[in-house]
Amino acid sequence: MLDPFGQTVVEDYNKLYEEFGIQPFEPLVSQVPKPSMYMRRNVIFGHRDFDRILEAMKKHETFAVMSGIKPTGEFHPGTLMTAREVIYFQQQGAKAFYCVADVEAYEDNRIPFERSEKYAVGNVADLLALGFDPKSGCIYRQSKENRVKDLAIIFGRGATLATVKAIYGERHIGLYLSALIQAGDILMPQLEEFDGPKPTVVPVAVDQDPHLRFARDLAAKFRRKYNFVPPSSTVHRLMKSLDGSPKMSKRDPMSHFTLNETPKTLTNKILNAFTGGRPTVEEQKRLGGIPEICPVYELDMYHFVEDDDQVIKTYHDCRSGRLLCGEHKARTTEIIVKFVKDHQKRRSRYIDKAREILNVA
Amino acid sequence: MLDPFGQTVVEDYNKLYEEFGIQPFEPLVSQVPKPSMYMRRNVIFGHRDFDRILEAMKKHETFAVMSGIKPTGEFHPGTLMTAREVIYFQQQGAKAFYCVADVEAYEDNRIPFERSEKYAVGNVADLLALGFDPKSGCIYRQSKENRVKDLAIIFGRGATLATVKAIYGERHIGLYLSALIQAGDILMPQLEEFDGPKPTVVPVAVDQDPHLRFARDLAAKFRRKYNFVPPSSTVHRLMKSLDGSPKMSKRDPMSHFTLNETPKTLTNKILNAFTGGRPTVEEQKRLGGIPEICPVYELDMYHFVEDDDQVIKTYHDCRSGRLLCGEHKARTTEIIVKFVKDHQKRRSRYIDKAREILNVA
Repeated sequence: MLDPFGQTVVEDYNKLYEEFGIQPFEPLVSQVPKPSMYMRRNVIFGHRDFDRILEAMKKHETFAVMSGIKPTGEFHPGTLMTAREVIYFQQQGAKAFYCVADVEAYEDNRIPFERSEKYAVGNVADLLALGFDPKSGCIYRQSKENRVKDLAIIFGRGATLATVKAIYGERHIGLYLSALIQAGDILMPQLEEFDGPKPTVVPVAVDQDPHLRFARDLAAKFRRKYNFVPPSSTVHRLMKSLDGSPKMSKRDPMSHFTLNETPKTLTNKILNAFTGGRPTVEEQKRLGGIPEICPVYELDMYHFVEDDDQVIKTYHDCRSGRLLCGEHKARTTEIIVKFVKDHQKRRSRYIDKAREILNVA
Repeated sequence: MLDPFGQTVVEDYNKLYEEFGIQPFEPLVSQVPKPSMYMRRNVIFGHRDFDRILEAMKKHETFAVMSGIKPTGEFHPGTLMTAREVIYFQQQGAKAFYCVADVEAYEDNRIPFERSEKYAVGNVADLLALGFDPKSGCIYRQSKENRVKDLAIIFGRGATLATVKAIYGERHIGLYLSALIQAGDILMPQLEEFDGPKPTVVPVAVDQDPHLRFARDLAAKFRRKYNFVPPSSTVHRLMKSLDGSPKMSKRDPMSHFTLNETPKTLTNKILNAFTGGRPTVEEQKRLGGIPEICPVYELDMYHFVEDDDQVIKTYHDCRSGRLLCGEHKARTTEIIVKFVKDHQKRRSRYIDKAREILNVA
């Protein structure tokens, strides 16, 4: 069956549904008042308790969205996706919380706070340039937000060694502490200072679902004290690496690009990307390409082509052999280079605002 | 050999010296400008790097003393001893830090912060009544002091699971977090805000030495960032329980008394204490008592008789059979009841000040 928004590794997703209790998102899409591009295209393929968010959206009741970034580098398509999801829910009426996870960057990636502060300013400028409204939203650094640190202290008593080892492996205590702080991030929107318990949606990539399970577990353990509503999530697929492997790697610069690259390196990376093409033009015209395994198609479909019909057309043109990889790459490169140029222009105007929000001199 | 200030379980102490690197304190006593009662009587029997403190005392250089209390109840002779040690060093010129370990009370003893706050006010009033000078010293609660929480985050990366399991056993993550905060307590006096690195002495009971090893280990790991001087300690003996067993238990109210009891219960507890006496008066007069195993003698010697000669006389009078247990108990009871009455009177005048220091409404 041809499906422009299908996924190649369905068995794995079924395992998530069956073993871990992630629900398929597809049945809900038609009920969402204005579904986002990620929802319409099944990039958001799963959820936990999203019904609660849907209810709040439909009835115009208070709800929150919470996500963030680990300030270890520049925005790339993965962080772009999460940021856009936060902004989408903010525009649908959510109180928005965006966390700069500098404690996690320190504990997990050994990035000193002085260094992550620099990345943080750029990351927040990206977020603002993408449309986050700081007036109705809250942007903060973990290291400066006492509320999340104090929640970590409270939650500590509910986090057994067995649980954290199962989720995070055998790590130093700082890593476990940063996991507790992350649970604090997810539940802070429900504190009295933010008008108390409320449905909260956390957009996550599928590999981050365990963090959400941990936060939900703690929400249940401390429900009596805080009356927490269990946090909900939307779960999105992982992006492929530009070399076609299943997950991009921050360590390999050719496996992905950032929103702060020059047109030259962007073009170079995309033109050198793996595709779903055939060994020869003749073969490709005869058999068609395989968009399901193609990172260039994924860039269109996940991120950079707004119009669904255009994506669907690209899918079928590739499948039928009408669209060859060279042409496709040139087109996608043009779209991305334009997007990145425009974004960088907007972003540069938000640097001062980002410094102000983060209270950085 | 008769030794009024001797200890019964010397083998155990030798093990501490040999295996764990605690040094005997006795050779240093004569070098201390004004040795405290605990030093003179070998109640402080060990130390780590106390030479560094001695040097600072002799040369009138900056040094600090740091200790604290877990706010889980009223002051008892054990916490009295630590408080007096802090006050002693403050009077010898140290910058004094006294920590109310409410995070530890929460993580280790499940005491909610609302409850430990009440104990904290009383504990701090006790400290002030005993002579701590808040003008030249710093009293704080862990839960309210961001500097110790932030040090815990920094130190987290240096605390392996193996280390914390060896010291604290297999516990929930909150307990390990409170251990990191405790290391923060011990090293906070060396932060720039408190005029930077300096020798710091931490008076501890012998069973708390592992915490000090942990803090010294972290001080070494983060020396490059903070230029920490390895913290020093004085190590004091554990008090016997009133029933004669080796360690008092907070759970058994007859095993100890607090500084907030009535003359009636104090008298009752001391008169019912175990002693080093013989089964019959006749036997005791003939053989003498055994002060080394007697908690009543220990109360005199450790805490409540200021005059060394008087303690030495009591020791020999007991040993020789001249002093019988009834008379000794009556005398000690009288001393303690008077001490506690006077203390309670002073303490009541410090409650408001304690509230002010802890910022409690």
